[in-house]
Amino acid sequence: MSVHRLARRAANLPTSFPAPHFPSELEADVIPFDSGFAAPQLLPDLTDFAIAALNAHREETLQYSPTHGQPELRGWLSDLMNEDGCALTPDHLLIVNGAKHGLELICRLLLDEGDTVVVTAPTYFTAIPIFRSFGVDFIEVGQDAHGIDVAALDSLLDARAQQGLAAPKLIYNVADFHNPTGATMSLERRQALIALADARGITIVEDTPYRRVRFEGETVPSLKALDRNGTVLHVGTFSKLVAPGLRIGWVAADPEIIARLIRLKSDGGSSPLVQRIIYEFGRSPAFAAHIERVQAVYRERRDRIVEAVRREIPAAEIAVPEGGYYVWLTLPSHIDGDVVTALAAEAKVNLIAGSTFFATPGAGNARAPRNHIRLSYSYATPEQIDEGVRRLAGAYRSVAG
Amino acid sequence: MSVHRLARRAANLPTSFPAPHFPSELEADVIPFDSGFAAPQLLPDLTDFAIAALNAHREETLQYSPTHGQPELRGWLSDLMNEDGCALTPDHLLIVNGAKHGLELICRLLLDEGDTVVVTAPTYFTAIPIFRSFGVDFIEVGQDAHGIDVAALDSLLDARAQQGLAAPKLIYNVADFHNPTGATMSLERRQALIALADARGITIVEDTPYRRVRFEGETVPSLKALDRNGTVLHVGTFSKLVAPGLRIGWVAADPEIIARLIRLKSDGGSSPLVQRIIYEFGRSPAFAAHIERVQAVYRERRDRIVEAVRREIPAAEIAVPEGGYYVWLTLPSHIDGDVVTALAAEAKVNLIAGSTFFATPGAGNARAPRNHIRLSYSYATPEQIDEGVRRLAGAYRSVAG
Repeated sequence: MSVHRLARRAANLPTSFPAPHFPSELEADVIPFDSGFAAPQLLPDLTDFAIAALNAHREETLQYSPTHGQPELRGWLSDLMNEDGCALTPDHLLIVNGAKHGLELICRLLLDEGDTVVVTAPTYFTAIPIFRSFGVDFIEVGQDAHGIDVAALDSLLDARAQQGLAAPKLIYNVADFHNPTGATMSLERRQALIALADARGITIVEDTPYRRVRFEGETVPSLKALDRNGTVLHVGTFSKLVAPGLRIGWVAADPEIIARLIRLKSDGGSSPLVQRIIYEFGRSPAFAAHIERVQAVYRERRDRIVEAVRREIPAAEIAVPEGGYYVWLTLPSHIDGDVVTALAAEAKVNLIAGSTFFATPGAGNARAPRNHIRLSYSYATPEQIDEGVRRLAGAYRSVAG
Repeated sequence: MSVHRLARRAANLPTSFPAPHFPSELEADVIPFDSGFAAPQLLPDLTDFAIAALNAHREETLQYSPTHGQPELRGWLSDLMNEDGCALTPDHLLIVNGAKHGLELICRLLLDEGDTVVVTAPTYFTAIPIFRSFGVDFIEVGQDAHGIDVAALDSLLDARAQQGLAAPKLIYNVADFHNPTGATMSLERRQALIALADARGITIVEDTPYRRVRFEGETVPSLKALDRNGTVLHVGTFSKLVAPGLRIGWVAADPEIIARLIRLKSDGGSSPLVQRIIYEFGRSPAFAAHIERVQAVYRERRDRIVEAVRREIPAAEIAVPEGGYYVWLTLPSHIDGDVVTALAAEAKVNLIAGSTFFATPGAGNARAPRNHIRLSYSYATPEQIDEGVRRLAGAYRSVAG
């Protein structure tokens, strides 16, 4: 096939973004603050569940399975979400191959080339190329400690309407322990966002990978729990709570939307083996014990990294998240996070520059300041955290002088 | 979300097609000739491979894995394809979530709304809605015992060019044990198809689910093995050879195409657990023994169903396939396969009417004759085959008189 024929398709391909390194590919003395990998000791022992799945349930796990997912898993998931304030039936749930697959199906259903999508500035960097691959434009909105700035979004959409521009199709957000900022939306902000979306006929996509990875503070109702009109498409995953390698997630939405997503889900069903393993694990006593361990280990690492940053880089502002995998550092305004990140890599500590998290990065975007970096504390050990922040501080000082 | 806003997207959604029933949902006395499920006794015991995968390889199988697939599996697969006449490196391979996912990624890369795709008449019915979901039109081409009619396709494309119509983007085909006809393309026909595609700059998508499910006769080189210019995108799967529930397949293509597909594969990697299980199974002695059993069991069932059809419905023409899961019956030209299928269902034998396999069915399409039915022999036992064909013959006689 000629490169020429493919060249014209290049515009529809996502721009490639810096991805975290695979820890297994790193030299032993490199410290991975870039990755959203799980702490290895938290990877659960799923052997017994797999044995049951491959034997007692062999005809289920090795034959074709329903496109929309295994009925018992959907039932268990709707119970889990209802305990969390929702009012769902299994028909509100579609099992997908991880949250990103759910997001992709939603894009295929709702987006046309030239549509616009609202994202926070900064936003989850892996979502950016997924949206971009559908040929959409971004509307970036700022956020604070209470989450996305709904009032600013409202004004922005008014101004666009006055210019005759179409309303955006989607508002994408991570409401709990936002990636990368760690911020959790307040109840008031959530209610305001839903009211805005309802009034303007915009769909909200709520991405919730970290929702149950909470260390402290009160759980805030999910956007889906507050949704009265089917405005919210909720995307969930087991990657951050159980194990990234499971590659099973879900979409919760009105049954009419789920039915349409099913018609686009042409994958022959998500792995019935992994679905059965998750269901058996989820309804075993091991599940609650696992969640407690996850929360305890990551709480300790968050404390450790916050303490280390305050000690080693006192000029950095650090927002302390109540859960999740990441801390977001605001460096003095003249410091370029890309330069700090490059120098840190030379000192064998990997992190991700803040600029990576903006949908339209670069000098032209006033909403994409350069003085941020994101540190992940999920994979590095407490000792690595101390040593990594020490190295990072050295890189920082060589820039800050 | 309002139905109104979604209504305008409906045109992009695939039309729903009759899908095979899940055997587990059927009453015990219903005979499933509709399903492409595996014979239950052929579902392999993967327990030991799963235990190894979840323990010795836990960090690989439960953490994130490379989007393009597990390196050892890609290496093993390229060896397997090279033994089958190809000349590939692991960089020619992308692991996907089953063949349908591979097909979808290819569509996303290459197709725009309004493009045309060449399919055989009849063709694999599940591929039709996947193509349709990308808003393409179909060019249907007939076939005979040697496969797709390349000369007819050539004339058809000449005629289209004279009308100023654009060349199709893709030619989709199942070259080995075609679904539904069971036909295998001859070497000459394969060479002619590749020459046509090369000359006209059209990509061939070779779908190969049944390639190794051969009972007899000489293996014909795959289209990929004959491809000299990167014209063929080869889609493979473990569903029909090992187990449908694995949901792991692959695309073999030039590394430049693979690199572009990877950028569209936003799923966070295909299940690393299942990839490791397949790799461990594939390189164990159990794999060759499994293939032998698969071939023996399905050969016996093919013989049984051919014999039963010849005995019970002598007016039906039956093309005897050298492999695969299906036989395609040509009934006398005045018999409507849809009516026979409906009556058979009343007699508790499920099959799929021939009309389901045409991209543009209905009275307007001269290439979609109504006098066909497809019978699957993969799931029904030999006893069910005899009884099912007896019931089918009753349904047939009540139509034929």
